[in-house]
Amino acid sequence: MKPNILIVNDDGIQSPGIQALANAMENIGSITIVAPEQEQSAKSHSITLNDPIRLKLVTLKRGLKGWSVKGTPVDCAKIALKSLFKKKEPDLLISGINLGSNLGKNLIYSGTISAAFEGTILGIPSAAISLDSFQAKDFTAAKHVSISIATYLLKNNLPRGTMLNVNVPYLQKNKIKGFRVTKQGKSGFIDTFEKRVDPRGESYFWIKGEIGKPDSSIEFDGEAISNGYVSITPIEFDLTNKRFINKLKKDLKYD
Amino acid sequence: MKPNILIVNDDGIQSPGIQALANAMENIGSITIVAPEQEQSAKSHSITLNDPIRLKLVTLKRGLKGWSVKGTPVDCAKIALKSLFKKKEPDLLISGINLGSNLGKNLIYSGTISAAFEGTILGIPSAAISLDSFQAKDFTAAKHVSISIATYLLKNNLPRGTMLNVNVPYLQKNKIKGFRVTKQGKSGFIDTFEKRVDPRGESYFWIKGEIGKPDSSIEFDGEAISNGYVSITPIEFDLTNKRFINKLKKDLKYD
Repeated sequence: MKPNILIVNDDGIQSPGIQALANAMENIGSITIVAPEQEQSAKSHSITLNDPIRLKLVTLKRGLKGWSVKGTPVDCAKIALKSLFKKKEPDLLISGINLGSNLGKNLIYSGTISAAFEGTILGIPSAAISLDSFQAKDFTAAKHVSISIATYLLKNNLPRGTMLNVNVPYLQKNKIKGFRVTKQGKSGFIDTFEKRVDPRGESYFWIKGEIGKPDSSIEFDGEAISNGYVSITPIEFDLTNKRFINKLKKDLKYD
Repeated sequence: MKPNILIVNDDGIQSPGIQALANAMENIGSITIVAPEQEQSAKSHSITLNDPIRLKLVTLKRGLKGWSVKGTPVDCAKIALKSLFKKKEPDLLISGINLGSNLGKNLIYSGTISAAFEGTILGIPSAAISLDSFQAKDFTAAKHVSISIATYLLKNNLPRGTMLNVNVPYLQKNKIKGFRVTKQGKSGFIDTFEKRVDPRGESYFWIKGEIGKPDSSIEFDGEAISNGYVSITPIEFDLTNKRFINKLKKDLKYD
């Protein structure tokens, strides 16, 4: 029997990343796509309490079907697991493929991570997969990594409450140096606010951020991808599960 | 010189909780209130990237002034620390007083916690204060606790990256048994989705939740408040900082 794989994201159901992930996962399982109607980046673990949540079955490129959700990434994971999959839980939840990495302190803001983490909270083996490019066109390497990670998760148990945060450098598949099990780094955006005045004379602000200085060691997520590795961090409630690092290093191979 | 205290919340600037907190903090410092225009519960660590953020100086009850922000709780903390306090950082950030506790797994969804945690990320001693009642009218005990916690934070250093999550039982001040330093428990809401049909025949869903079974020991946050203690959990990136528990137990006294 084919495993059931739930696919979620935060870039929205029309993102090329979720379609690449769906295409990759079709090779190994029976897929269900449940994703936000619109982009929901930086929504973290927010849920919709004061508005109704709506679902619509839509057709994506290449004839794929998916549930479009008026809600946050976590709403998508929750409603899929609590409502759509009520009778038979999926074997796996994969969130992504996100356009842009999810590293260091930024994990706390990420909808991609939170959607996967909601799977973990509800007892489903889960991973988030992010590609280190905001304008990625070539998903070949990221699809290969996604299949590898999904296959690993279908055969091995993660510790209770732990998920995998996977970041893929934007390189050709044969340029990637391999997997590297990492710790969550300390680097993050350094935000500033840009003040502007609207045509009615009222002021408003935009958040803008620059990436802070990277961590110094390849032990950490950001440095690993800068050096051409796929970074894989076992996280629990958004913090490195340091006790699991050695076992995972031993068990997980890049091929 | 009086310490500068930044006050934020997620219930919105008109919430009675933030006004109670402001009144308490005026006893020990010079206060600045920066809070969402509207209720922002369960917004977690989300930030506003695709909409302009607006600030407005408004007058609250009893003549207090505060900045009303069109944005999330984390937007409030960020814009206060990065823009309003640009020249002189506040000495302290307190988030609350939230109507309803923030315990166990639910910390991940909480805007109250995230607003305080943003202070911690930006290097400001921070705490979140929640009162275990959605309809609280009497803030006497919570105000007393807030002053006690703020005074502690002005005199003592927390470990880098750690904040305090404070939950106050809804009891009269003299019925509270004291402070208890706790670990984040595992209990949380068990969510279900209620399906309804709108007048146009379209279906929609509401999230609804029931509190799961509590943790078994008073070592954990939820059990501590059920037993009449103020629960104080040192958390880092939303996880218990276990290494700090004993020191804090020794240093912090209820009086």
